[in-house]
Amino acid sequence: MPRVVVDVMLKPEILDPQGQAVANALPRLGVSDVASVRIGRRIEIEFTGEPDLDRAREIADKLLANPVIEDFTVRVVEADETAGARS
Amino acid sequence: MPRVVVDVMLKPEILDPQGQAVANALPRLGVSDVASVRIGRRIEIEFTGEPDLDRAREIADKLLANPVIEDFTVRVVEADETAGARS
Repeated sequence: MPRVVVDVMLKPEILDPQGQAVANALPRLGVSDVASVRIGRRIEIEFTGEPDLDRAREIADKLLANPVIEDFTVRVVEADETAGARS
Repeated sequence: MPRVVVDVMLKPEILDPQGQAVANALPRLGVSDVASVRIGRRIEIEFTGEPDLDRAREIADKLLANPVIEDFTVRVVEADETAGARS
């Protein structure tokens, strides 16, 4: 069953202290080739019928993202591409 | 510049109260054709050189995901596919 995936990320000009904390922890893991880490949200919406991108965009705009500080993208993915389906 | 994107989602058998709260709010927006909403994290890792999937997988496993309750996927995306680059 296809799902709609909404990716919500902070706008590039907004500081991301959570991502920064991960980036700062990397040298302790022996990782020195990471330039930046940004952390956002991924929302999977399953429709009862056909996936509806316009509807998903409306939901994202009203409920899922804060348009002042966040950008979002909306796309349809097949069920076997979703993170829940594999590890 | 390509980036590595790590998608972290709760395992399908783990309850997601945050997604449930969004799903419960949808009828008030006039949306009645959504079966479920699951909320996870999307992490964008930018490397100083070539994107390194194995390294990203190690970072995800140690720092980004809780393997007891979460699954993650790791993939390379072009910069113009990232949520931060468009709205």
